[in-house]
Amino acid sequence: MTPWVSRLLPRNGRSLAMASENQRAEVRHRHQEAYRYFLPIQTRWQDNDQYGHVNNVVYYSYFDTIINQYLIRYCGLKTGLLTSPMVGFMVTNQCTFHTPVSFPQIPVAALAVEKVGRSSVHYRLALFPPKPSKETPSVNHWDLSDGFFLGHSKLAHFASLACTTGSSVHVFVNPATSKPVGLPEDFRRGLLRLLSPAPG
Amino acid sequence: MTPWVSRLLPRNGRSLAMASENQRAEVRHRHQEAYRYFLPIQTRWQDNDQYGHVNNVVYYSYFDTIINQYLIRYCGLKTGLLTSPMVGFMVTNQCTFHTPVSFPQIPVAALAVEKVGRSSVHYRLALFPPKPSKETPSVNHWDLSDGFFLGHSKLAHFASLACTTGSSVHVFVNPATSKPVGLPEDFRRGLLRLLSPAPG
Amino acid sequence: MTPWVSRLLPRNGRSLAMASENQRAEVRHRHQEAYRYFLPIQTRWQDNDQYGHVNNVVYYSYFDTIINQYLIRYCGLKTGLLTSPMVGFMVTNQCTFHTPVSFPQIPVAALAVEKVGRSSVHYRLALFPPKPSKETPSVNHWDLSDGFFLGHSKLAHFASLACTTGSSVHVFVNPATSKPVGLPEDFRRGLLRLLSPAPG
Amino acid sequence: MTPWVSRLLPRNGRSLAMASENQRAEVRHRHQEAYRYFLPIQTRWQDNDQYGHVNNVVYYSYFDTIINQYLIRYCGLKTGLLTSPMVGFMVTNQCTFHTPVSFPQIPVAALAVEKVGRSSVHYRLALFPPKPSKETPSVNHWDLSDGFFLGHSKLAHFASLACTTGSSVHVFVNPATSKPVGLPEDFRRGLLRLLSPAPG
Repeated sequence: MTPWVSRLLPRNGRSLAMASENQRAEVRHRHQEAYRYFLPIQTRWQDNDQYGHVNNVVYYSYFDTIINQYLIRYCGLKTGLLTSPMVGFMVTNQCTFHTPVSFPQIPVAALAVEKVGRSSVHYRLALFPPKPSKETPSVNHWDLSDGFFLGHSKLAHFASLACTTGSSVHVFVNPATSKPVGLPEDFRRGLLRLLSPAPG
Repeated sequence: MTPWVSRLLPRNGRSLAMASENQRAEVRHRHQEAYRYFLPIQTRWQDNDQYGHVNNVVYYSYFDTIINQYLIRYCGLKTGLLTSPMVGFMVTNQCTFHTPVSFPQIPVAALAVEKVGRSSVHYRLALFPPKPSKETPSVNHWDLSDGFFLGHSKLAHFASLACTTGSSVHVFVNPATSKPVGLPEDFRRGLLRLLSPAPG
Repeated sequence: MTPWVSRLLPRNGRSLAMASENQRAEVRHRHQEAYRYFLPIQTRWQDNDQYGHVNNVVYYSYFDTIINQYLIRYCGLKTGLLTSPMVGFMVTNQCTFHTPVSFPQIPVAALAVEKVGRSSVHYRLALFPPKPSKETPSVNHWDLSDGFFLGHSKLAHFASLACTTGSSVHVFVNPATSKPVGLPEDFRRGLLRLLSPAPG
Repeated sequence: MTPWVSRLLPRNGRSLAMASENQRAEVRHRHQEAYRYFLPIQTRWQDNDQYGHVNNVVYYSYFDTIINQYLIRYCGLKTGLLTSPMVGFMVTNQCTFHTPVSFPQIPVAALAVEKVGRSSVHYRLALFPPKPSKETPSVNHWDLSDGFFLGHSKLAHFASLACTTGSSVHVFVNPATSKPVGLPEDFRRGLLRLLSPAPG
């Protein structure tokens, strides 16, 4: 699908200068170096839709999973509604689908933090397929509970160009009042570890 | 969640002029008048996530459903992979979540077409909750197979302000070659019925 | 798929007498008369799997939906975790798939209660497809918020033979202690309205 | 939830002798030794429902995934609808939920084959949670593409008692005619490797 995807991306009345700046960002965000944290994703039979590829909806659940797994594992997020002092609500998210993946492929999700506000976090996300040279991924061991960080040797087993790129914004609110809360210091510290600001 | 959602939307380095133009579009797109076709959405128990609201991922499946339902019912799309001369792939999509909905609420999805290209379609989408004055929607009869069009009296039973807005781009390809195909004339005609171009 | 499904059902070492008794029950449970409450189900594009039919997993979410919708609408169940004195956990469930359905078909789910215990409920479930004579269901108005009861004229628009039959057992527990709770009297009354005991 | 689950399982008019035989089978099927093939399952944020546990529906997608992953990896199943000479349809399936699991836990799914017919396969399934002594599983490496077989040392990291047990029956049909097909010899051989017949 690759060649014509970029031609079809919405322009939204942006100026040409803006468009080309955005295009440069889009290209940059398809590379592993734009991300800090990685989590293999186990696709499921049910993820494939009638056309035999992972349905576009399902990518958002992959991205929700890497975000929440990182927040729980590295930032101390408690998700029990009866016990949690704050819960994350999605404000906005978007994806661009460059090439498809399918069950039973095992791609790797990628996460970077663009900005940490008082109660909000801006994420950048991508999915990298296993290298196309093998039918099934040759790497047999994954780290589903710890993930891994940029520089890890396991990344060599995945394509260098993302099949899907995306972004999202979380806001954290008090579950009782639905009002935004200030992010705790150690939570913020865990997020800043993935900081990779959008240039320019 | 309303008041602070707009403050959190990503700016992406856009100029102030652009931002305010986009803000005006965002406001306009939260109203029923920006859409042409409407389909009630039956939420499911499984749609609610751990925080008791429809999970952000699920909204994308509501929007996939109104799009494909319209294409099958009004544009003659055949979706059987063994028989279909063209299949739609999602190129990009995005949502902004203004206020939550929950099972067992019955919102209405809304669809407009911004642009029809040679093989691509740009959609604008929204979800309107049932009017907040009643616990369960007072309208008991829906049209799940035909939907309804702007101007229909049923729309009075839904809030005038969208709880979710979004957009997406479909490209239609030959399932055998994965190459884009020119859209057939009657298919294009069905889409143009929903045309509501982005102003400016 | 019909003719060979019954031959493939597991026998589990049951005696022949048992098997034929079960076969009679199976036949009886494929008819609308074995159920008391009905709710149209809006299929979604994402429900179809790679083979173009609603995936077997998804039927369980249809059945979860009719059960919870009935409990909320007619039995006063509160599902907010922060406010609810009891929550339902599934103990066991099963389905038999006689013939497939596909998006965008609009089948009707069916519910009966076989037994109400101190803190548990045994349900019987089925799904009836729209009558096969029309491409899209000719009935345009549904009752998604109230459902309807056995005897309603709308049932004539659905096949008399179920495409899927199933059963499940709910137990209601205190969310804080996870211990079973006695069902409140009006909750029990709502359930007994659907009572249709298994004969024999 | 454990102690009262067994009391709530449906009796279906079975004789007492039958019930106690079934109870013995139920106990046996909660142990790792009753299975032959194992696949770690990556839970997703979206799997948790409003009550904070993996929703009952989702277990069926875990079991669909281990079955199809085994059929593709070890039995040569081709799942492309345009190219496949046979596709598997689910005839019946059932689950019993003994204790809950939740995202981000990483349980292991387990599979055995009870019977291989001319065109059908009877499966037995279970899910084993990570050992409860650690908050996150201490085993960092999984084999998502190859799985592992009974006797593997990784199994020591999972509880010896299943949290969920189930069974299902697949029938393989010609996608063009929907008629059952005889299973190819090497496909059958891959299945027989997991044979573990129900005793008695």
